[in-house]
Amino acid sequence: MCPNTLYIPELREMLSCSDEAGLQQFCTALHPAAVADFTNMLEWDEAWKVLIHTDPQTRSEIFSFYELTRQVDFIENLSPQDAAQLVGELPPDDRVDLLEETEPAVVAEFLSLLPENIRRNIFHLQRYDEDTAGSMMTTDFARLQQNTTVKNAISSIASQAEILETVYYLYVVDNQDRLSGVLSARDLVSSIGRPDVVIGDLMDTHVISVDADEDTEEVAEQVAKYDLLAIPVVDKQHRMLGIITHDDVIDVMREQATEETQRIGGVAPLDESYLRASIPRLTWNRGIWLIILFIGALLTAFALEQYRDGPLTTAWLVLFIPLVISSGGNSGSQSATLIISALSAGHITPRDWMRIILRELAQGVLLGVVLGLIGYLAALWLGPDDPQHYIHALTVPITVLLVVIAGTLLGAMLPLIFESIGWDPALMSTPFIAGIIDVVGIVIYMTVAILLISGSPV
Amino acid sequence: MCPNTLYIPELREMLSCSDEAGLQQFCTALHPAAVADFTNMLEWDEAWKVLIHTDPQTRSEIFSFYELTRQVDFIENLSPQDAAQLVGELPPDDRVDLLEETEPAVVAEFLSLLPENIRRNIFHLQRYDEDTAGSMMTTDFARLQQNTTVKNAISSIASQAEILETVYYLYVVDNQDRLSGVLSARDLVSSIGRPDVVIGDLMDTHVISVDADEDTEEVAEQVAKYDLLAIPVVDKQHRMLGIITHDDVIDVMREQATEETQRIGGVAPLDESYLRASIPRLTWNRGIWLIILFIGALLTAFALEQYRDGPLTTAWLVLFIPLVISSGGNSGSQSATLIISALSAGHITPRDWMRIILRELAQGVLLGVVLGLIGYLAALWLGPDDPQHYIHALTVPITVLLVVIAGTLLGAMLPLIFESIGWDPALMSTPFIAGIIDVVGIVIYMTVAILLISGSPV
Repeated sequence: MCPNTLYIPELREMLSCSDEAGLQQFCTALHPAAVADFTNMLEWDEAWKVLIHTDPQTRSEIFSFYELTRQVDFIENLSPQDAAQLVGELPPDDRVDLLEETEPAVVAEFLSLLPENIRRNIFHLQRYDEDTAGSMMTTDFARLQQNTTVKNAISSIASQAEILETVYYLYVVDNQDRLSGVLSARDLVSSIGRPDVVIGDLMDTHVISVDADEDTEEVAEQVAKYDLLAIPVVDKQHRMLGIITHDDVIDVMREQATEETQRIGGVAPLDESYLRASIPRLTWNRGIWLIILFIGALLTAFALEQYRDGPLTTAWLVLFIPLVISSGGNSGSQSATLIISALSAGHITPRDWMRIILRELAQGVLLGVVLGLIGYLAALWLGPDDPQHYIHALTVPITVLLVVIAGTLLGAMLPLIFESIGWDPALMSTPFIAGIIDVVGIVIYMTVAILLISGSPV
Repeated sequence: MCPNTLYIPELREMLSCSDEAGLQQFCTALHPAAVADFTNMLEWDEAWKVLIHTDPQTRSEIFSFYELTRQVDFIENLSPQDAAQLVGELPPDDRVDLLEETEPAVVAEFLSLLPENIRRNIFHLQRYDEDTAGSMMTTDFARLQQNTTVKNAISSIASQAEILETVYYLYVVDNQDRLSGVLSARDLVSSIGRPDVVIGDLMDTHVISVDADEDTEEVAEQVAKYDLLAIPVVDKQHRMLGIITHDDVIDVMREQATEETQRIGGVAPLDESYLRASIPRLTWNRGIWLIILFIGALLTAFALEQYRDGPLTTAWLVLFIPLVISSGGNSGSQSATLIISALSAGHITPRDWMRIILRELAQGVLLGVVLGLIGYLAALWLGPDDPQHYIHALTVPITVLLVVIAGTLLGAMLPLIFESIGWDPALMSTPFIAGIIDVVGIVIYMTVAILLISGSPV
């Protein structure tokens, strides 16, 4: 299932005895994505010592399979010369994504070392907003003129094939560079017997394209609907700007699925993977929602207060039952959402359970303290006018703290347990977790109340 | 945004005056996916009258873009001859998916009309379990022998290009048909200047492949990780069985994202889209979880009962507060999950709001009655020994019914409202909806209690 630690001892061994031939073979024998996977467990500088044993092009290819935050680690620590070489060989779209995440001071250091045409390409692509088609596109694509013959088209593509990101669609432009048609490599190859036919007669003129400022979600929609390998990006005058390839679309779809899962679960989407996100960042992205929900839930206490003299002549503590259990349920749902989405994106495995528990515990304490404080104020407000009340009212914040911690821990551990016994962790659905925490919450609340109030009616 | 109704009047007009030329042009001028989209709003028999104006191959291509349940509608209603022709032209993987959903009696009628080789292919593919690589693969792929020259390879691919699903990867097999390497069309085209080199010397021997019984999720994982256009499927002896193309992987990823969202939201995944699923099916897929959650939530009532003589000397009605509000919250979360996932899969739009309200209302009533009955029994059990109690206890089922209906309606409408004003419907997160319904639930509960018990303490 998770072979990424497999080669680590061998790699470290080869590094320590400077086995140049072994390292060289390691870098070239495997698929670049696999090399990236194996070296991902090394520190960046160890990984770099492995990667220097291959040619710059393969090195950039391997590098492009790392997660963005790791790429930034490299670039911010390498010499400007090494950084420039690595960045120069990346596909244009990946390059711009990387530069946008890197410290501007670091970028400034090596930017001047890049060739003129690459620098111009960077400035050109940086104009497009994040989450638009323009920001996803690459400017390396196969472009043909309408009056080119099949024979010339084939030799032109053959000579460019090495440097293009895809040669499977050939885009045909008129003399104003406007997109006028598309020809698949398949159609070109099947016309090999008619070398003098011009491309304009073979091309399909119903090209599906997107505007540069179209939303990335819409791009994914179009590519999926029309089963495309790549989609051309045009400007308002329908001039060809670039293409978006299927692999970038798949990445966008995966990110979108993770973000949507997080949003539905009441967590502001994270830009990075669960284990790489800092604890303050994680706490903030869920805390903001949790506080809104908590203040909303305070309404239940005030709503119940309205009915206190009706059919339920009741203790003031009862007013806070819905609030207390919903704070546990919500923090539990959020943790479950974070863990399930991180598992399904492949960002964590059950083997990371110790780190996950510690992270969730830290978040639980932070969130519990903040919510508890708000709860204490509400309890002081709604409780009886009694000299002991400021002590009795402590029941609410103490319970909220404990319930939120129980929520984050249970919400994280239950999906992990499901995953590790081979069940779908999503079966540990958020309502299910909330349900379990409801019962736990009531038991905690009553126990705390009895301890604090020593069994005397309040 | 949603142009699918755009051509409907024109199409109906062309059909009524038998405008053969117009219909023919409609079928060929647009991309097959667009034709499928436009004719999707017609009844199946009207759509068929449009589709007969094009050649069988284009017709099957358009047909392959319909949703599976609609394809079944066609096949089960067409004459065996027409059905056989349509099915015969489909890609092998789509064909098997369709036959598996079609009434066996109907399949038996036209199966004998299919050519021998297609029938054999069907039986071959049907052996693989759903959700395995084997069930996703197509058997049309480009296969080359190691000792073929570049020149012969190009002419062989050129002659097959029309019928193959993809020609972008050429799979190289040894004389036992075992997969020994892969050559991209790009590499073949760039070697066009060396026509006598043999394929075995050009191919990449590190082929990423999957076993036929591998899980589809794992297939998607591999394709995404290695940025592949297609992945070969092999048997235990590493013999080449077929390939899975990127468009099928994208479809699987989309389905998986929807299913995961539904699971996390506590709804058993639907096999079909929201509007096509029958109301009993929808109700069952969420009801099963809702009942489990409700019975779990009954534990909160029993847990509270334990503490009734402690610091909260309280009315029996209070015991049911957590139960009542969680039943509303859960049904609301489920509806929100169903609607958000259907919106993001493109299965519904805010224009369908009327149908959605009616469907959610029907589900709310069904679910509310069942849960209410369970709640009534629990209320009779836990309530005081009082001649009026069987009436007072009605507070619980009546409230549960109303709260569940409020949950389904709010849970469905809030994301639709967000979508229609251009916000992300997933911002209407499930904890947020549950929070709103908590307050609504308490107000309903207290109002019902006051009406039933007429203000007298119970």
